[in-house]
Amino acid sequence: MQDRVLLAHGSGGQLSHDLINKKIVSAFGNPILDKLDDSAVFELTGNERLAFTTDSYVVSPIFFAGGDIGKLAVCGTVNDLSMSGAVPLYLSLAFIIEEGFLVTDLERIVNSICQVATEARIKIVAGDTKVVNQGSADKIFVNTSGVGIVPPGINISGANAKPGDKIIISGTIGDHGMAIMSQREGLSFSTTLQSDCAPLNHLVAEMLQESQCINSLRDPTRGGLATSLNEIAKQSEVGIEIQEQLIPAKDEVRGACELLGFDPFYVANEGKLIAVVAEEAAEGLVRKMKKQPYGERAVIIGQVCSQHPGRVVLKTPYGSSRILDMLSGELLPRIC
Amino acid sequence: MQDRVLLAHGSGGQLSHDLINKKIVSAFGNPILDKLDDSAVFELTGNERLAFTTDSYVVSPIFFAGGDIGKLAVCGTVNDLSMSGAVPLYLSLAFIIEEGFLVTDLERIVNSICQVATEARIKIVAGDTKVVNQGSADKIFVNTSGVGIVPPGINISGANAKPGDKIIISGTIGDHGMAIMSQREGLSFSTTLQSDCAPLNHLVAEMLQESQCINSLRDPTRGGLATSLNEIAKQSEVGIEIQEQLIPAKDEVRGACELLGFDPFYVANEGKLIAVVAEEAAEGLVRKMKKQPYGERAVIIGQVCSQHPGRVVLKTPYGSSRILDMLSGELLPRIC
Repeated sequence: MQDRVLLAHGSGGQLSHDLINKKIVSAFGNPILDKLDDSAVFELTGNERLAFTTDSYVVSPIFFAGGDIGKLAVCGTVNDLSMSGAVPLYLSLAFIIEEGFLVTDLERIVNSICQVATEARIKIVAGDTKVVNQGSADKIFVNTSGVGIVPPGINISGANAKPGDKIIISGTIGDHGMAIMSQREGLSFSTTLQSDCAPLNHLVAEMLQESQCINSLRDPTRGGLATSLNEIAKQSEVGIEIQEQLIPAKDEVRGACELLGFDPFYVANEGKLIAVVAEEAAEGLVRKMKKQPYGERAVIIGQVCSQHPGRVVLKTPYGSSRILDMLSGELLPRIC
Repeated sequence: MQDRVLLAHGSGGQLSHDLINKKIVSAFGNPILDKLDDSAVFELTGNERLAFTTDSYVVSPIFFAGGDIGKLAVCGTVNDLSMSGAVPLYLSLAFIIEEGFLVTDLERIVNSICQVATEARIKIVAGDTKVVNQGSADKIFVNTSGVGIVPPGINISGANAKPGDKIIISGTIGDHGMAIMSQREGLSFSTTLQSDCAPLNHLVAEMLQESQCINSLRDPTRGGLATSLNEIAKQSEVGIEIQEQLIPAKDEVRGACELLGFDPFYVANEGKLIAVVAEEAAEGLVRKMKKQPYGERAVIIGQVCSQHPGRVVLKTPYGSSRILDMLSGELLPRIC
């Protein structure tokens, strides 16, 4: 019989300590976490600006081609910090586990978190584990919050896009959403679809080394490229125009979208970023990004304009154009 | 028909924005949160030590005498920061909501969070909202993470207890756990039982003003007084002795414990703290605590000793003693 998580593992008592120490803390061991006090305490030097973010992950299935809920949770929070121009440093990790969850599955998730934390060079310094009765949650939910330092001189916000700026996407769109959906639907070609789930902090660091003329960064997760561009257009009170034929997407993603009736512009990504950058810096940034593993297919897809503030317009190859609204309604429940 | 949370409210698109802006962000509005970028960014001055903590809340029922899941989540995280001697500053707030949850209940929770955030003088600066299909979660789960500043000279840890130190408890034990349990069980006297759920940061600030000889602080939540004292004994490699007749508990809590077969030493508290302090500072600290609304019944209940390191011993009024172990097994699922 395989070990399962029991309600008692969430009691705060001896069994909680055993599970947490043996299965979780031992995996992430670092001097800050090892103290196991109520808060992690660490030093900062100088006059710092801090970035702070949180996300809960409820993706289903919890294991998918290209990742799992743990990797997703770390990447998501690392990326949210990176999108503020921050260097991610410390993450917290909170599990809500359904009674009966396999301990081996928890270990698999913890190991995956470990791997991607190492890659992203962040430390897990605080955590929490709750267990709920069978049927009160679906397998496992993960929350990661994170703090990072915003280096001096960096001022990146969805509100900073300016007319004339170029829009860069770091690679193909729709990979994460279609990997999840095709796995859920049991599509036969699902084996070639992989989530793009990846930590983008090193890519952003390289970009900032190339140029500080980066005005907005966004990772187009839930709601996809279209929703993220709408957020920037609204926050900055500018118009955005993108060229349909310039937007990279894998053939199998386009195929799965057609088959399932999705528009790739609205499908979630978990390892891509949108950068809004000064026109003169755009070409250099794309060259730099292409040398990075998570930026190989970086490309300029459009520009910011002063017309139609708050709106995103898609120019088709046939010369026509249509307004790309925010996602309305639910496209893909539990995609992240 | 009452408004309910739909799956589409978790899509990341237009409906998500509506729910988040109208029901959540508008309640907490502050310049840091209002930016709605991927991370909250704020400034720190000088060479600071930062405290960082996370907790998920899955309490059932979500509304209870003396509080609700929202108040509990804010107090829990404020208290975890306070137990490191930190001044809590910023909290993140992440909801996992079951499809069909009443929007009015969400508003009630958000209002309650607002109230206690105001009392604790902390700001909600980052957030996330996910919605899962009906049956995939039980109503609503809340995660709060928090950051605070540890003032210079403060060095509080579960590992700092020293033989000779006195143990102070800030008030009666078992209130939160028995309020929840009696409500679940529908006990007739449940109306007089109230959760002690409260933010303890102002109490800790007053204590630190009185004396910096505070070595350990802990809020005895899941696992209760006995488990928290065991954690301190183990982390500090010291023995702890407490006197049974000195430990304050309300009559109705003792009554409910007897009726339901619980030991109050293991029942959760959500507005109490244990302080391990230098002997010479203990009396002065208790006097100071008694003047604070959440410390009125503060009392010295025992001391740290060099015998039986890692163990907590309870001295009974009859002269006998017994070892108080950590909680083993689950006493009260979903108590917080």
